[in-house]
Amino acid sequence: MSKEESERFLETAAVGRLGVFDGEPYVVPVNFVYREGKVWFHCACEGRKIQAILKDPRVCFEVDDFLGLKEGARPCSFGAYFRSVVAYGVARIIGEIPRKREAMKMLMAKYAGDKEWFFEDAELERVAVVEITVTTMTGKSRLP
Amino acid sequence: MSKEESERFLETAAVGRLGVFDGEPYVVPVNFVYREGKVWFHCACEGRKIQAILKDPRVCFEVDDFLGLKEGARPCSFGAYFRSVVAYGVARIIGEIPRKREAMKMLMAKYAGDKEWFFEDAELERVAVVEITVTTMTGKSRLP
Repeated sequence: MSKEESERFLETAAVGRLGVFDGEPYVVPVNFVYREGKVWFHCACEGRKIQAILKDPRVCFEVDDFLGLKEGARPCSFGAYFRSVVAYGVARIIGEIPRKREAMKMLMAKYAGDKEWFFEDAELERVAVVEITVTTMTGKSRLP
Repeated sequence: MSKEESERFLETAAVGRLGVFDGEPYVVPVNFVYREGKVWFHCACEGRKIQAILKDPRVCFEVDDFLGLKEGARPCSFGAYFRSVVAYGVARIIGEIPRKREAMKMLMAKYAGDKEWFFEDAELERVAVVEITVTTMTGKSRLP
């Protein structure tokens, strides 16, 4: 897929998988928002995602869509129709309340619609917001 | 989720994500089959998955299902309905042709139906089959 197609898929996919290294590989699904080279998601302030990112901020971020089975004459000509993007980047935990608010508003707009979402400071302090700056991405597809 | 529920989800999910460490975290979607504590998938004989597993066979394997949005009175009471399983295990590349054939038959049965699939030795030599022995798994869900 072209960079534009990969980015469009990242913008619309409902679930992404964060891959980190925390002494062993760890993969975890998250709801997220992608815009202009950055991924944002939120999570609990303590937990394995945060712990791993603090140790090593290099992350992988993956989205995919399984579009069905490509059949063939022989088993070896079977395959999957799919789209996927694998992105690499550097994660940081956002501390600044205005930037957390902006990220949470983008998340709400993606999943719940573009309304005037309001967040109290105290609500924002209770969650962690992670921002991944994507450095490279590879999009692949085999379409029906 | 209970171990039984997590295993049932692993048995039926169409796509799993392999997480490995190859100098940096790498997450890649695969079609796979799960049975009795083991995951099998196939891939090209050369490539990043194989290279990473040869360096460090400890892997993470993830499946998820996004079931929609849980709405709430405040943004903070929104959430996702989902199911997910995160498994950890040790991967090995299967060399023995009979075991590769058995794994490929299970894969075909899962995706294309339980027929008498036949594989030539030469066909099996052209693909790599990876077997993950799962050591632990955690299943989570929030159902509508």
